[in-house]
Amino acid sequence: MTISFPSPHEVRTVACIGAGVIGGGWVAHFLARGYDVVMWDPAPDSADKVRRLVDNAWPTLTELGLAEGARPDRLQIAPTLEEAVAQADFVQESAPEILDVKIDLLNRIDAAAPPSIVISSSTSGYSMTEMQITAPHPNRLVVGHPFNPPYLVPLVEVVGGEKTSPEAVAWASQFFALTGKSVITMDKEVPGFIANRLQEALWREALHMISAGEATVEQIDQAVTDGPGLRWPFHGPMTTFHLAGGEGGMAHALEHFGPSLESPWSRLMSPPLTENLQATLIDGVEKLTDARPTSDLIRERDRCMVAVIRAIEGIRGASS
Amino acid sequence: MTISFPSPHEVRTVACIGAGVIGGGWVAHFLARGYDVVMWDPAPDSADKVRRLVDNAWPTLTELGLAEGARPDRLQIAPTLEEAVAQADFVQESAPEILDVKIDLLNRIDAAAPPSIVISSSTSGYSMTEMQITAPHPNRLVVGHPFNPPYLVPLVEVVGGEKTSPEAVAWASQFFALTGKSVITMDKEVPGFIANRLQEALWREALHMISAGEATVEQIDQAVTDGPGLRWPFHGPMTTFHLAGGEGGMAHALEHFGPSLESPWSRLMSPPLTENLQATLIDGVEKLTDARPTSDLIRERDRCMVAVIRAIEGIRGASS
Repeated sequence: MTISFPSPHEVRTVACIGAGVIGGGWVAHFLARGYDVVMWDPAPDSADKVRRLVDNAWPTLTELGLAEGARPDRLQIAPTLEEAVAQADFVQESAPEILDVKIDLLNRIDAAAPPSIVISSSTSGYSMTEMQITAPHPNRLVVGHPFNPPYLVPLVEVVGGEKTSPEAVAWASQFFALTGKSVITMDKEVPGFIANRLQEALWREALHMISAGEATVEQIDQAVTDGPGLRWPFHGPMTTFHLAGGEGGMAHALEHFGPSLESPWSRLMSPPLTENLQATLIDGVEKLTDARPTSDLIRERDRCMVAVIRAIEGIRGASS
Repeated sequence: MTISFPSPHEVRTVACIGAGVIGGGWVAHFLARGYDVVMWDPAPDSADKVRRLVDNAWPTLTELGLAEGARPDRLQIAPTLEEAVAQADFVQESAPEILDVKIDLLNRIDAAAPPSIVISSSTSGYSMTEMQITAPHPNRLVVGHPFNPPYLVPLVEVVGGEKTSPEAVAWASQFFALTGKSVITMDKEVPGFIANRLQEALWREALHMISAGEATVEQIDQAVTDGPGLRWPFHGPMTTFHLAGGEGGMAHALEHFGPSLESPWSRLMSPPLTENLQATLIDGVEKLTDARPTSDLIRERDRCMVAVIRAIEGIRGASS
């Protein structure tokens, strides 16, 4: 059965189910983008908490630029889950990471929501395949995994379960992008999706180093914030490695530094650098950088890095 | 034998041996900090290359703020290694990463340099213990590992070899800090030091994902730059995890998210979260954040993130 979803441009009302740090952050995001938001959360103090979160975030959101008509008072608190989703054009579920709770809530949302809307889960820990098993219309259930705080970090990872229709995945990706998000649409369900796997590899290596007395907690953070972390807001690991290759780019970097992948740097073993993998990396980074010359990328890197350093200094200087 | 080093404040002349991307970057750094710099490199075009690098970097360095009297023409090119180091108050070696070359150059530098100065190697791949084996005065040889570009990225990792005196390590740390660097002084020689081990763990997990068809090159970079990477210039993984624990901080985060370390997120296995390791993490992050309340840290995080986003947007917008 395929569903015909209305255009993402027609969404007016978003229902947010669950209003903790993530759910509340989504509320702030959708309000700032000019939507009507209906929130439901079973906790008795949730309305106060989410209003406080939105109030705290609003000056920041105003500075970043609000959509036309965006107002914090376009938030309604619904008395029941069913009433929250009944009038929604899109639902974002952000319940605690407990599988049974997720399954139950998604069942209830799916049963009560209008038939032709997409329902998205903020889960970071489960696959939609696990969560959609008893849903009445599993084909419209997707994962839309945000990062904290969802009103500031642009990234959303979108992926369906085995029973999700490709149309629902495409719709959700298009809708999130419309609301200003940076969307990664994944073909495969992978535990931890993409960004958290990368974060987690770094985090685990840090734990190993602390555990072995090789680095302190402070040194771990200093090593990131004053070192490679300075470029990660504008150049990811692929572009960084591409630039490490100088004029020869990724191909030269693989030739030059590839062998050190075999060295005991980090406790994570390297995959074999097959010809195929090398070609994928070289082609990928060419696409990623629009094949811009290295000198151009380096100029941009330096300017971004100075801007980042100064921006942070300005804030730290003002608050100390 | 202990050496008595003159105060790091008395350094006037720095010798840079090797002037590739890293060595040339050091030249630019020391010139910008108001030192006389003497450079030597065996490549016939090295003088032109390093002058071009300094010229390209100078506007950026000027914007960041030059030391009094800093001028690009305070660079001298020496005809021999021996003449370069003869008058130096400090030597930074940045030769290619070939062990025999490093050993040979450090021997020559050590034999020709004034007896009471510290000699530092930019190596990323070798330990000082391996490199100092035949040096006449191994006690003054340290690693001072920078990040590219050395004139912008503040981090320097300082560590000695088995034959290095603790005084030389302390002196180098103090000197680099005087020149505006963010210094990590390591007690142990660990392959890859600290920051590269962390980078490398992330990089290897990325390679695994690309290799398995779980993510594309573009998605890897997007996942970092538009997600967790946005906070890495101001909050490292430890502070990030601390904030993920909400008001309960690191202790709550370990309790809440600790079990997911056992999940197959990333291919790097987790170390056991012993009581000891947990206590180290909790104490460490308290020290790191000066025990500031979470709400305060979150406010700072949001302001830094907005500043970083806007700074990068400004540059990208202007150049597109």
